[in-house]
Amino acid sequence: MPILRNELGDVLRGARLTQGKTLRDVSSDARVSLGYLSEVERGQKEASSELLASICDALDVPMSEVLRDVADRFTVAEALAAAVVPIIPDTVPEYFGSPRRPGVSLLAARR
Amino acid sequence: MPILRNELGDVLRGARLTQGKTLRDVSSDARVSLGYLSEVERGQKEASSELLASICDALDVPMSEVLRDVADRFTVAEALAAAVVPIIPDTVPEYFGSPRRPGVSLLAARR
Repeated sequence: MPILRNELGDVLRGARLTQGKTLRDVSSDARVSLGYLSEVERGQKEASSELLASICDALDVPMSEVLRDVADRFTVAEALAAAVVPIIPDTVPEYFGSPRRPGVSLLAARR
Repeated sequence: MPILRNELGDVLRGARLTQGKTLRDVSSDARVSLGYLSEVERGQKEASSELLASICDALDVPMSEVLRDVADRFTVAEALAAAVVPIIPDTVPEYFGSPRRPGVSLLAARR
């Protein structure tokens, strides 16, 4: 499953890049340090509610839109996670065990 | 504008109460302290991404659904905020200035 701060960071970075803005532009408008903004975008720091609101303001993107984008990413991940379980085979197909295809694991390939 | 952690807290508490679960039930399943969960629900603590995921798991509610509920709350608040600006009148209606209705301010009443 994805981690919220990673997805949030991706969405915020995406919005910034779409607008052709630099980290410096947004950090200055949002009054957050450039390092902090960069860490938030890379999912290395949790943004507080207030700072997230400031970043959204600086990007002129409604909070609702950011949250909906993040929700959509989780919807996809959840659907994939739900779909993967039933298609993991009970038995390893014959050709995976054959000497012609050594070292290939279906489970490993999926991860 | 609403604060993210308040809205998130409301949505989580709503999901818990809908299921007839106690703070103790959810805190135990999510392996977070009862006090911490209570603070998150009341918007007094920011939930880390990991803890939020644990709480969603304990409630058996997909993260996407929680985020979408919170996004919907922001959509309403943003629409209201956008709607309030144009209906603030440029001029004070005559009757507000009349001696029969002293001390009534349309702007003050709105706040």
